[in-house]
Order: sequence, then C-alpha cells, then structure tokens
Amino acid sequence: MNDSFETIAEKLLEGDRIYLFPHENPDGDAIGSTAALCSMLRDMGKDCLVLIDEKLPDNLAFMDDDMFVIPDGDIEAPDISVAVDCSEITRFPKLMDIFKKAKTTICIDHHVTDNMPCDYNYIDPKAAAAGELIFLLMKTMDHKPTKREAEALFAAIDTDTGNFLYSNTTKQSHEIVCELYDSGIDVPSVGIELYETVAPEKNRLEVMALSQMSLFHDGKIALTVITQQMLEETGAKMSDAELVVAKLRTIKGVEIAIVLKERGPEKIFASMRAKSTANVRDIATAFGGGGHIKAAGCTMYMPLHEAVEQIIAKAEEVLGD
Amino acid sequence: MNDSFETIAEKLLEGDRIYLFPHENPDGDAIGSTAALCSMLRDMGKDCLVLIDEKLPDNLAFMDDDMFVIPDGDIEAPDISVAVDCSEITRFPKLMDIFKKAKTTICIDHHVTDNMPCDYNYIDPKAAAAGELIFLLMKTMDHKPTKREAEALFAAIDTDTGNFLYSNTTKQSHEIVCELYDSGIDVPSVGIELYETVAPEKNRLEVMALSQMSLFHDGKIALTVITQQMLEETGAKMSDAELVVAKLRTIKGVEIAIVLKERGPEKIFASMRAKSTANVRDIATAFGGGGHIKAAGCTMYMPLHEAVEQIIAKAEEVLGD
Repeated sequence: MNDSFETIAEKLLEGDRIYLFPHENPDGDAIGSTAALCSMLRDMGKDCLVLIDEKLPDNLAFMDDDMFVIPDGDIEAPDISVAVDCSEITRFPKLMDIFKKAKTTICIDHHVTDNMPCDYNYIDPKAAAAGELIFLLMKTMDHKPTKREAEALFAAIDTDTGNFLYSNTTKQSHEIVCELYDSGIDVPSVGIELYETVAPEKNRLEVMALSQMSLFHDGKIALTVITQQMLEETGAKMSDAELVVAKLRTIKGVEIAIVLKERGPEKIFASMRAKSTANVRDIATAFGGGGHIKAAGCTMYMPLHEAVEQIIAKAEEVLGD
Repeated sequence: MNDSFETIAEKLLEGDRIYLFPHENPDGDAIGSTAALCSMLRDMGKDCLVLIDEKLPDNLAFMDDDMFVIPDGDIEAPDISVAVDCSEITRFPKLMDIFKKAKTTICIDHHVTDNMPCDYNYIDPKAAAAGELIFLLMKTMDHKPTKREAEALFAAIDTDTGNFLYSNTTKQSHEIVCELYDSGIDVPSVGIELYETVAPEKNRLEVMALSQMSLFHDGKIALTVITQQMLEETGAKMSDAELVVAKLRTIKGVEIAIVLKERGPEKIFASMRAKSTANVRDIATAFGGGGHIKAAGCTMYMPLHEAVEQIIAKAEEVLGD
C-alpha cells in the first residue's frame, strides 16, 4: 500500500540532511526528477544532495546546478534517503551503503513492482515518469516549481514518454506540462540540451551501424551488428548504440528490428524491437532472454555469424508466412 | 481583421458542397487539419472533399478515409472553398481555378501574413498548428472530435511542433492534446504511422549523407552534400534529404549545420540550421537567399566544390573567432 504524498511530505520536512538516489546509468527522468526535488528541498532550507556514482551524461549535465555529487568515503550519514525512479536499492549498487544509513527511507517510483522497499513509498506505475510524481508531491507541498525545476520536470517527462509518443503517455502527462508552462519553461533550450548534444563518435557509430543494415523476410526484419572493431574505429562505447534499434524500426515495412552487439568473441547481446503486431519476447525467450512484446533482449553464446543466422531464423518463425 | 469562428461556422453551415484545400507538398498539419475538418463537415451532412494535386505521402496516408481526392477536369464547382494551413491560394497552384469557383471562400491558417485572401478569414500566427484552429472551430460548433478526427488533429499538432519541442509550442498546444485524449486517441499508433514508415531508399540516402559529413571550425560547423549521383545510387529523391540538416545539428558542439544539394551542375541549394547563438540568415543573404535566424537557405550558382569553400568561409565569418 502506498503512503500518501501528505505523509511523505511530512516525513521530508522532519529531516535536515536529505540525500536523493536516482538509479545507476541514469536517464532523463532519473536526473530530472531528482534535480527538481533537490532544488525544492534546498529552497525549504534542507541540506540536500543527489548522489550518483559517475558523472552526469553530457545531455543531462545542464540540470546539475551543483546538486549532483559522487560521494567519497567520509560523506556524512543522511537523516533521510529517497530512492527516485527506482524501487530496488540494488539499482544503485555503489551507493546502497550510504542509502541504508538514513534513519528514514522513502521511495518514489513509477516502475511496475511488488516491492515496497522503504519506510515510506509512493509507487504509481500509471505515471509516465517519476517526474510526474515529483510534480504531484510539489503540489501537495504547495510549492510552485521554479523555471529551472519545471524545466527539469519537463526533461523527465519528455524523455520517459519518448516526446509524448510512447504508450505510457497520458492526459495527465500533458496536464502537468500545461502547469510547467506556467513556470515559464524554455522548451526549445531544453530540447537542444537533451537531443542536440550527441557526441561525434556516437554519431559515427550510429551511421556505421545503419549503413551496414540488412533487410530479411521481404523487408519485415531489419538487422545490423555492432562489433568491437566498429567501436575501435569510431571511438564510441557500446552504450552509444542504444538508439540504433529504434532507428531500424522506423523503416517502412520493418516489423522486427534487431541489433546484435558483440560483447565478446562468443557473447552476442541481441536488442530487439517490434513495430505493430510482432512479438520479440518470443524470440528473446528462445535464447534464454526476456522482456516485453515490443522490446526484448537476450545473450547468445556463439560466434557472431551464427547468432545472425539463428536469430533471423527464429524471427522468421515468429513472423510466420 | 479576423472574422470570428462563429461567423465561419455559420458560413460553413450555409453551404452544401464544400471543398478543402491544403497547401501543395502537404505536411502533417495540412493533412491532419483538413482530414479532421472534412470528417466533421461530412458528419453534419455536407458533401465535403479535400482536394490535393498528388497522392498523399506514405506517412500521412493513414488519415485518408476516402476524403482526399485528386480532381479531374469535370469536378463540380463547390459552394464553399476553404484554404487550410495556407493564406496564399498560390500555395496550391494546380487547384486555384477550382478554389475560385466557390461562391464563398474561407481561410484558416497560422502562418504569419498580412494577407486576408478570402471572404472570411481566421489567421492566428500564435497557433502552433492549423490543427489547433480546427479544434477551436469544432469547439465553437459544439462538435466533440471523434477518435479518428482527434488522431488527425494530434498528428497535425505533433508534426508542426516537432513533437512539442519547437518554439511555436505553447500551453494551448498541450491543453488541446488533453482534450484529444478525451476522444480516446491511440497516440502510439499515430506515432508509428507518422515516424516509422520511412522508405528504405530515404534511409539509405540519409545514412550516406551523414557518413560523408565533415566538421569545420573546431567542430562548430557540420557540412554534408547530396549529389545527383547519391540520388541515383540510393534510388531516393532530393526531398528525401529533408531531415539531414536537422540531424547534423544534433551533434555536440555543432552551431551551424549545412546541407548542399546539387540541383544541377552549377546550381547548388544550401539548406542551413543554427543551434543556439549563430545566425544562418546572414549566410543565406550573402548568397542572395533568405529565411530565419535559425533556418535559412540560398541557391549558389557555381560548382559544388566551390560552393563548399565559399559557404564554409562565410559561416566561419558569421561565427567569428
């Protein structure tokens, strides 16, 4: 059972030193939500920090404002720890110890879970982003977001809803954005920060991966690979390939998009997306993986060329005719 | 002076045969707005068509519903002609004659203009999309959009606001989307139609253009070219390169993005975008072109290699230091 925002607000007001914990490899929602919450709590006189385990990604650094800290050994214990955008404290493994030192723990999240990990919890899987919940908490506390806070919340919602196109987007998402406009948000500037700070090496890797794309099964399957050699040639990291599978899916007629990532000589990670009717979870589970109907993945312990053959065969089987 | 939506509604109700005219090379807003308006007018018993001069683009065809017609010579004259998303009837040159045959003409648009081209006009440059104005007209007429109509209006607003990130987006855009949710819109399906029906040859051209991108001036200028040979090799049309310049601008550090399109042996069209502080209109006007500060273009009558040199020199001058 969730606690109410009123209870959570009350508890927050009782503490002085408050640390916020987004999940590791944080995305726009994790950073935007914690940035906005931290700013509000500081405004209320709290000694508040957001703890992270590595520096912010380039496209999220604009939300820093001296709130995000990679803690060293002698950071003081907090009165209150708040996990944001994650309902498992294992999602920030390097910071678990500090998290647990708090007298009171709170969780605010929107992921589906049976877990109520903290002393006080507000977990709503119907919210498109943790940012929506932070906005509602602010409302409960009669705090109108500042321009900067509203921009962080916009970033949270915009990134987690895929620019308001993903199926998690609701009327509430847009209602909240309406109120963020009342705080004077500069949306084009936020958009430039989020989406127009792509590292050149990431762009090189994307272009290389897309130029090597192949179509199978009458153009219904698009597949490309990311090899270790491609990473060397472009200077990019494997995580720079995150958007390639979505880009493959935008091609007309493609029902299943597959990106095979060479993690080792016989260790291939397959990242897959389905467009409208196909089920890529069925492909993933055949190789011991899992996920959702439209987004799934698996690790294949075999050479790359064999992984290509096997996954195409399975994808053709799943598509039928 | 604008007429009121009440007056325009009254006039529409007086006609029987009503033709709607989006601009040529129609975009999501032109098609979405006319699709929604046509559907409502048919629902009110009108004999309504949307006239176009070539078949709908692939990614907009989902809004057709037997409303869009390429007229032949003996189409009957309308009682009312409505220009939508354009305030110059020269923007549908092949259909001007039919437009003028109407007893009453109406214009509904959101582009900046001094022109009041029709008998009755509603032109609001503060609206992010013509779709917003059609929604407000529907409201005036006490018509709650059907699911299909609401999806067409969502497509109109979503495409013209660049997924709610362009500077034309306002609180009103999101307020209207909230009401479209009340009509039960299926946003992810609309998103797939709009953005995931990219022709393979268009994708090939984009990838080829991006793979040939060069950076200049400490990475502040990104330039690529689209040659006639590239069109031949990929099977794409020049218009398939429309998104390349925006994609170049997403690279970190790039302030000015330039795409040179070879229209003829000594006829190069330069399409340019600025990110935050640069002014590409100054570059365009230096070569006899024009546009806005952040989006401009010009035609350069010289060989391609010379156009590259000259435009880079001018862009460096505009950037300074």
